[in-house]
Amino acid sequence: MKANLESAELSLRLWRRLYETYTLLKRCEDQIFEEHGLTTEQYAVLVSLSYLGQPARITDIARWLERSTNSISMIVDRMVKAGLVRRARDKVDRRVVYVSKTSKAESLFRPATMESFASVQKILSPIPHKDGLTLLNLLGQVKYETLKCVNREVDIEEIKRDELKQAANIKKWVNQYGLSSTPKTKLQRGKKKKTTR
Amino acid sequence: MKANLESAELSLRLWRRLYETYTLLKRCEDQIFEEHGLTTEQYAVLVSLSYLGQPARITDIARWLERSTNSISMIVDRMVKAGLVRRARDKVDRRVVYVSKTSKAESLFRPATMESFASVQKILSPIPHKDGLTLLNLLGQVKYETLKCVNREVDIEEIKRDELKQAANIKKWVNQYGLSSTPKTKLQRGKKKKTTR
Repeated sequence: MKANLESAELSLRLWRRLYETYTLLKRCEDQIFEEHGLTTEQYAVLVSLSYLGQPARITDIARWLERSTNSISMIVDRMVKAGLVRRARDKVDRRVVYVSKTSKAESLFRPATMESFASVQKILSPIPHKDGLTLLNLLGQVKYETLKCVNREVDIEEIKRDELKQAANIKKWVNQYGLSSTPKTKLQRGKKKKTTR
Repeated sequence: MKANLESAELSLRLWRRLYETYTLLKRCEDQIFEEHGLTTEQYAVLVSLSYLGQPARITDIARWLERSTNSISMIVDRMVKAGLVRRARDKVDRRVVYVSKTSKAESLFRPATMESFASVQKILSPIPHKDGLTLLNLLGQVKYETLKCVNREVDIEEIKRDELKQAANIKKWVNQYGLSSTPKTKLQRGKKKKTTR
């Protein structure tokens, strides 16, 4: 690591590395979801329904996934055809569309979630806990700065409140799916565990 | 930041934050490229041609972008129709396809690059340099661990050599596009500069 890395260079290298890391992690998840008969996009919609509670509005799903309402509508269309979600319109305001999981989706979701979480945990397990917290914090800073670029009027305090709610949901989820700190799945790589503090 | 954040929770929060940060930064870039008449995917192919040198093989472009050869072929098809790239087959091995930029692409590429880089620099400018280096390093660790998940036979030393080559290319690019540490574009937000060490 060169300490004298110029600021413009560092920015570009960070952007490139964020792209690589995200794309690789996504590719790894794609493989898992495919084995469970889901695309990553479909899985993401099912996750959002778990976090937001069902039925959820398309606009809320889109917001949670940081995507456009239009693109989520198209994914939901295909999911209705695949028998993964049900769609219902609000009785008062017909423009509002609610989405909920079918029992087929429920049965695919649990094993896909267990395996995907185990893989994320396995990938991140060699990173010391302290470094993980640093990474979470630094990515947060980049996220807030990017939000200002996408939307100048953004209320960072509101975003932080949303994050607290989300963190609570993740905690609930970890308990619900019985995820422990030491995942015991076929994905685990033997005893090659690093000692972390 | 809770210090006692459980490891499973931390992993999921990191994965979620990586998704959010990448997606937001991409959305910000999408807006810029759209203004320049390019999709982000098309721009990414043009970037790869700049890094790899032209003409470049589709397989090398796909590898550089961590995408499948098939998906890059489809993007290139559309780019040929849009007059952005030329395609040529290898005279000896007809299966090998080479891609190079047209003059139309060249004329769109430079301003799009300048503005996109300025936006990335602007977004990352409030992050202290030292923290940026830490983030680069930590994302690198996540990337290496993910590579092991995607491909168990991966040679991390070879990946690191590739990264050194890429870093040299980024340096060359920063010079070529005259990018400085203090971008002066319409994107810069007045005097709201944070004091960073």
